[in-house]
Amino acid sequence: MELRISKEELIRALSRVQGIVEKRSTNPIIANVLLEVDDAGLRVSATDTEVSFVGRHSGSVEVSRNGSITLGARQLYEIARLVPTDSVSMSLDEGSTQVEIRSGKAHFKVPGLAAADFPPIPDPEDGAGFEITTGALKALVEKVLFSISSDDTRTGLNGAHVEVAEGEDGKGNLLRFVATDGHRLSLCGRPYQGEYSAPRSVLLPKKGLSELRKLCEKPDDVWSVSITDTTATFKQGAIAFSMRLLEGEFPDFRQVIPPSWQRRILLQRSDLVDALRRVSILSSEKSHPVRFKIADSTLTITARQQEAGEAKEELEAQVDGPDIEVGFNAKYFLDALGALETDTIAVEIGDSLSPCLVRPGDGEEDELYVIMPMRLE
Amino acid sequence: MELRISKEELIRALSRVQGIVEKRSTNPIIANVLLEVDDAGLRVSATDTEVSFVGRHSGSVEVSRNGSITLGARQLYEIARLVPTDSVSMSLDEGSTQVEIRSGKAHFKVPGLAAADFPPIPDPEDGAGFEITTGALKALVEKVLFSISSDDTRTGLNGAHVEVAEGEDGKGNLLRFVATDGHRLSLCGRPYQGEYSAPRSVLLPKKGLSELRKLCEKPDDVWSVSITDTTATFKQGAIAFSMRLLEGEFPDFRQVIPPSWQRRILLQRSDLVDALRRVSILSSEKSHPVRFKIADSTLTITARQQEAGEAKEELEAQVDGPDIEVGFNAKYFLDALGALETDTIAVEIGDSLSPCLVRPGDGEEDELYVIMPMRLE
Repeated sequence: MELRISKEELIRALSRVQGIVEKRSTNPIIANVLLEVDDAGLRVSATDTEVSFVGRHSGSVEVSRNGSITLGARQLYEIARLVPTDSVSMSLDEGSTQVEIRSGKAHFKVPGLAAADFPPIPDPEDGAGFEITTGALKALVEKVLFSISSDDTRTGLNGAHVEVAEGEDGKGNLLRFVATDGHRLSLCGRPYQGEYSAPRSVLLPKKGLSELRKLCEKPDDVWSVSITDTTATFKQGAIAFSMRLLEGEFPDFRQVIPPSWQRRILLQRSDLVDALRRVSILSSEKSHPVRFKIADSTLTITARQQEAGEAKEELEAQVDGPDIEVGFNAKYFLDALGALETDTIAVEIGDSLSPCLVRPGDGEEDELYVIMPMRLE
Repeated sequence: MELRISKEELIRALSRVQGIVEKRSTNPIIANVLLEVDDAGLRVSATDTEVSFVGRHSGSVEVSRNGSITLGARQLYEIARLVPTDSVSMSLDEGSTQVEIRSGKAHFKVPGLAAADFPPIPDPEDGAGFEITTGALKALVEKVLFSISSDDTRTGLNGAHVEVAEGEDGKGNLLRFVATDGHRLSLCGRPYQGEYSAPRSVLLPKKGLSELRKLCEKPDDVWSVSITDTTATFKQGAIAFSMRLLEGEFPDFRQVIPPSWQRRILLQRSDLVDALRRVSILSSEKSHPVRFKIADSTLTITARQQEAGEAKEELEAQVDGPDIEVGFNAKYFLDALGALETDTIAVEIGDSLSPCLVRPGDGEEDELYVIMPMRLE
């Protein structure tokens, strides 16, 4: 194996895989990247056996001799970032596992592990699937990621559920992601092209979505997505990213979305964010309880703690419905408000024990957040 | 107590004390700031009983009623940063310990602890001491801070030793800080005005110096410094900062500074920094061992680890003296090089077991770093 690659391209290749490789494993090779060099250029792969990445590099690469090896992903990235010149050469003698890396007067000899021992990476054929823009895909991920449960014992809640929803008149179908941790829920749909097909119900893991988000760069790029019985694969340009589908059944989330509301308030999103941040300084750090009181076209938010004191703030709001007092976890509200993008948002409340809905104020997008109320003393 | 203060001034006052207050103490009041309001304005004090700060604020403060209280420093800072308007009012009823804070429609009630229970803060009279510019004081602190031992059991090495040194012809005396952790040493002198006097040998604690550095803003401002039997106090403008002197005897550091050298190399500082950063990627993370080989006007730096591979880099250098190979902790070199400011630096080496000296290349400043060699296999 022998090649020359631009420093910039090597940094780019390796920065993408830093979150995927897994250092604390009994299998040390999954802390490595697989480097494969052939006439088409360099292929860089990484996997933790659940989430996998393959990137192809041809433009800034000159290949002198084909070959393959795996090297520590973190160490190679550090070397790439610090090499003194714009160009890096890497060479591996036949039968050896030690790669020589040169750049200017810097010279490294780095021992690798054989490419043959690298875990297989799923590579479904192209074409069988649907297409979605980077902008839409990134939105879907960002709007649900924070609602996925981090509790490994909550089978079925550790991933984002995927389904197809009917769009509004003439707008075609939507790809919809839904996630919940049992206390709050995110739902978002965005347009896609082609045919969504999956042989089973699809639950995408949190780490996979979190890494996928990092790969979403230019909003107008198009990803092709295919889903098999075990794996979802996302391809865009020279990148292929795949994640193993989670086992477990996502709950029937439609049950927790109230079909109607008794109170609806319209608010400026940024005003509500600022007020919640201030008031929650004085709520407990564990569950951030705050009280919403709606009366006389005013939303009053309060927090109270025995030792820490109390905070109160009033917001003018457009209120439709009778007065109410209800408790929430301020952090759940702030997460939802941070994912929303519209200037105005709508909060829909039934009674003080029923789930609360937060939506874009114009009501157009397929996007909503459900937040369960808290009992306050 | 009743006052109005600008948001900006309150943030400024509280940001300065965040590193001083101590949350994890059996005495909860030292997590608080003392607020004292009188006709002169607002006085904000903080102490962990070793390091203390007093700041006076008059410009952006309107006092309606005198009084004093202590409030949680962290919480008050969070409130200050998030209040919605440019102005904050604080009021405390006679006999109460609950402060009301208002800004626009935001309203907080924060319980405090009585001012009378706040630990006393040393306040030596003005004039008994010497003066030094912020620029010189900051340099002294930054050049020795990293060499202070963090090991609490190393009595005498937990602080920076202070002494007066003779400056070069006609330049007056220098205030000199020296610190060592037993493996490396920093020494730096800078000019001061007035008379240095201290009733005992002076050892300044690491936390105190670290907080003092944060208070060093405009290089030309002048600090007046006074040292009593127990305390060093630094005053500048409306700020008084004091730290309790450490017990323990600083070692006779002159013993470890070699009086002469056998090899001297002149190098571009940035070249050496870059090469060391690269080579040490492949040295162990514990002691960062690298080998310096000096021969034929070249410094060759290498690192080698059984599992991680090896790195080598050559630097052209102006070499005076015979060839040598010697091992160092790369981190100690990088710390010293990071504190130096000159483009060219000099490295002076005796033999492979004797301390190495690093100095500014022009040799003018009272500044040097001693680095003990390491035995390499």
